[in-house]
Amino acid sequence: MELQDVKFEGWPHVIYAQQFSRRWLEQKLFSEARNMRLVVQQRGCDVLKGMRAVSFFYQKSTRTAASFAFAMDYLGGRVVFSTENAREFSGASVGENLSDTIQVLHCYEPDVIFLRYDREIGAEIAASVSDIPIINAGDRQPKGAPVSLFSGQHPTQAFLDVFTIQERLGGIDGISIAMVGDLANGRTVRSLSYLLGKFKGVTIYYVSPKNAQMLPDVKDYLNRRDVKWCEVTDLREVASLVDVVYQTRTQRECGGEIDRNNYSLGYFMMDGTILKMMKPNSIIMHPLPRVDEITPDVDSDPRAVYLKDQVKAGLYTRMALLKMILAPSA
Amino acid sequence: MELQDVKFEGWPHVIYAQQFSRRWLEQKLFSEARNMRLVVQQRGCDVLKGMRAVSFFYQKSTRTAASFAFAMDYLGGRVVFSTENAREFSGASVGENLSDTIQVLHCYEPDVIFLRYDREIGAEIAASVSDIPIINAGDRQPKGAPVSLFSGQHPTQAFLDVFTIQERLGGIDGISIAMVGDLANGRTVRSLSYLLGKFKGVTIYYVSPKNAQMLPDVKDYLNRRDVKWCEVTDLREVASLVDVVYQTRTQRECGGEIDRNNYSLGYFMMDGTILKMMKPNSIIMHPLPRVDEITPDVDSDPRAVYLKDQVKAGLYTRMALLKMILAPSA
Amino acid sequence: MELQDVKFEGWPHVIYAQQFSRRWLEQKLFSEARNMRLVVQQRGCDVLKGMRAVSFFYQKSTRTAASFAFAMDYLGGRVVFSTENAREFSGASVGENLSDTIQVLHCYEPDVIFLRYDREIGAEIAASVSDIPIINAGDRQPKGAPVSLFSGQHPTQAFLDVFTIQERLGGIDGISIAMVGDLANGRTVRSLSYLLGKFKGVTIYYVSPKNAQMLPDVKDYLNRRDVKWCEVTDLREVASLVDVVYQTRTQRECGGEIDRNNYSLGYFMMDGTILKMMKPNSIIMHPLPRVDEITPDVDSDPRAVYLKDQVKAGLYTRMALLKMILAPSA
Repeated sequence: MELQDVKFEGWPHVIYAQQFSRRWLEQKLFSEARNMRLVVQQRGCDVLKGMRAVSFFYQKSTRTAASFAFAMDYLGGRVVFSTENAREFSGASVGENLSDTIQVLHCYEPDVIFLRYDREIGAEIAASVSDIPIINAGDRQPKGAPVSLFSGQHPTQAFLDVFTIQERLGGIDGISIAMVGDLANGRTVRSLSYLLGKFKGVTIYYVSPKNAQMLPDVKDYLNRRDVKWCEVTDLREVASLVDVVYQTRTQRECGGEIDRNNYSLGYFMMDGTILKMMKPNSIIMHPLPRVDEITPDVDSDPRAVYLKDQVKAGLYTRMALLKMILAPSA
Repeated sequence: MELQDVKFEGWPHVIYAQQFSRRWLEQKLFSEARNMRLVVQQRGCDVLKGMRAVSFFYQKSTRTAASFAFAMDYLGGRVVFSTENAREFSGASVGENLSDTIQVLHCYEPDVIFLRYDREIGAEIAASVSDIPIINAGDRQPKGAPVSLFSGQHPTQAFLDVFTIQERLGGIDGISIAMVGDLANGRTVRSLSYLLGKFKGVTIYYVSPKNAQMLPDVKDYLNRRDVKWCEVTDLREVASLVDVVYQTRTQRECGGEIDRNNYSLGYFMMDGTILKMMKPNSIIMHPLPRVDEITPDVDSDPRAVYLKDQVKAGLYTRMALLKMILAPSA
Repeated sequence: MELQDVKFEGWPHVIYAQQFSRRWLEQKLFSEARNMRLVVQQRGCDVLKGMRAVSFFYQKSTRTAASFAFAMDYLGGRVVFSTENAREFSGASVGENLSDTIQVLHCYEPDVIFLRYDREIGAEIAASVSDIPIINAGDRQPKGAPVSLFSGQHPTQAFLDVFTIQERLGGIDGISIAMVGDLANGRTVRSLSYLLGKFKGVTIYYVSPKNAQMLPDVKDYLNRRDVKWCEVTDLREVASLVDVVYQTRTQRECGGEIDRNNYSLGYFMMDGTILKMMKPNSIIMHPLPRVDEITPDVDSDPRAVYLKDQVKAGLYTRMALLKMILAPSA
């Protein structure tokens, strides 16, 4: 069984982007997400009435946690317990601790668990001991650890990213995209790459310093799919070619660091220079939060979607996902 | 347009004390707050049924956060997402980060956002990018930054303070009050001074060490209003004259520090000595939390209102404010 | 009045294990807890509809906090405000600060307060200023402080522990139990010992290094009750004799430390060696979280109850307790 054939159906968990088929994305997730836009306009519904979620974050991410909380709420469910910084004592054998914790939460019988994990392949460990749906809200492999096809992902971020592209560009087949920044440590670019591999004729330009390039598992995957990719160190080389610039943050908290003003490394800033080069109907994305990798003058450009369309897409796709998992027949 | 003429009506945000008129305070806030006392006795109502709040605190303040949470709950609304320590990475350009964050929360379409910010003029930055009501739960100017008429305030604290005075002393015109402590860094004394400027014949004694005196923006404002003020360094000089002693905490977390036992600096303790001097029908207030600036023997004195009346006033006035903003016609 | 005669009835607080009678445990808590198992199967009820809880933790404990949150939720109540790390500034006089905080929360009129405190005899301080029920979710005496019969307890943990024993072994009279680990700093072994003192013919083996033995207040109590106890430093000596091995964590966060592999201190690991020695119908318990004091191969043994029965018992007994306190006639 090839990974890209793994189906969401049957398995209750949402762990890595590869498990979802193009058909599922287009015929289920996207259409359901469009319905959710209306549900929010109507200020909510009650398809998840009485449903209970746990939001368990080992790493702070207020935006993602808030997005899941509002998704539950607009559907009539509730987050019964949430924590932003779950790690209790550094002395613990981490994997052990996570496995125990999930089994404990399991005893309280929530309907779903949102898990953000800061080390190892947390979402998989959780899924292995739970028959309550685990939704991976971001995990990553430790620096230098052997890379797993499952690890270091943020699938719900990838959902909102492809949905944003679909809605703004009218389709995903044949697009070209520049992913910019610390690609070795970024969760979002990994999951997005895996999802783009489901589509036809996509071209990805990986724009990063030599020491922060995309990891081989993704490249191997893309090579087996209908995706062209290449690596550059200067965003100016590709800015005029792409339909999407996907800018990402330097992963300071992962120990990564890019000096974006050290032009001997390359050119990685999304700024006025790049803006002038970009196509009129292209878009500029960012998973947020940002530090300084997009200059403020970009915000007001109509092509910038990171502060509005992309964030709303996160709410709609998470609502859609929750409805499909918790109330599929509703 | 003078600041004190700014009206609450029309503008959805609650950022600084000056924006509220005396008429609004007396005819709307106070009377609505009295109704809220009954709502709590009846264990709640549902005028905010289906309404969603975000409680976004960049600086821990369990008391204020709890007060807002209960205010929403007693009115039938709910806090869908809350965070106590929102700052995600110190590397971020702070203002930028806040502006992005508010725009992100905006996409989730809450009905109101409670914001506590620990630096700069956060509430104004938030209000500038939001048409969803922002309620300033306390912000402040960075040490040594140019003082803005808007910055460093805690307007809902000022509401509960004036409501407490109104209810206990039967009115605010003509009262004399001693504000004691680190007046240069205190949010609450700034907002309270601005509100007292709305009333007639008020006298304020600012009691602080020379290095922690009230900032000039407040003094300029008071000079344009019908408020007498003067500065002293010894609470004993004025204790017998005032209707209110408003004691405040040394702002340790702001880097300020008063050695209250170093009597070369002055006398700033609210203790048995001061208690004996005070008028029988005066009151002792404190925004809480306290460290050691009020001695425990003061707690049981009938004039001490900081552990009961003042805290309840916080719940009632915040409920009143939320009802006026979110369900004005209810 | 001897402590063991203190009754729960009349006093609204749940502070220490001794205050509960055997009759109350068997005829009320246990039977109500069995009902709660059904309530969870039915996905909740509304006996606490409209009831408000505050979950106020000065020390992180995601498992206990989640257990209380789900207990409220399954009964139809809600946690209106919760904090995981309530301490606001280290400079504060701690007891003072707690007393103020409880009085502030009191003003918001919740129906119950869950309090986890990390120093001193917090739950007692809280109870002394509150007529709203305080439920002690764990407190402890500071190292080297005079030991109080009330301090350093975790009564709701003790409830779930005895309920687990009752359900798995069919009764508590006459059982023998080994409590293993840092007994000087452990809250749970203190409260469990006090509860076991309510029953007949119980034998307790305290297994710990010499520097981490059970404190004298517990031993004095047991000497006045029908409980045999003795101290050993090698779990292998007693493993074959006991019905229960109650393993506990090294209290790293309390400054305690046991090198479990330094066999000059003794033998304190719950591992395959101990497993082989234990009776077929015995059980292995742990309050969680664990570090490394139980080896993973023990988890799958049918005698291990710490990841399932014991955790579920925590939910059921807390639900039962809340119903008895907040809706006794329901």
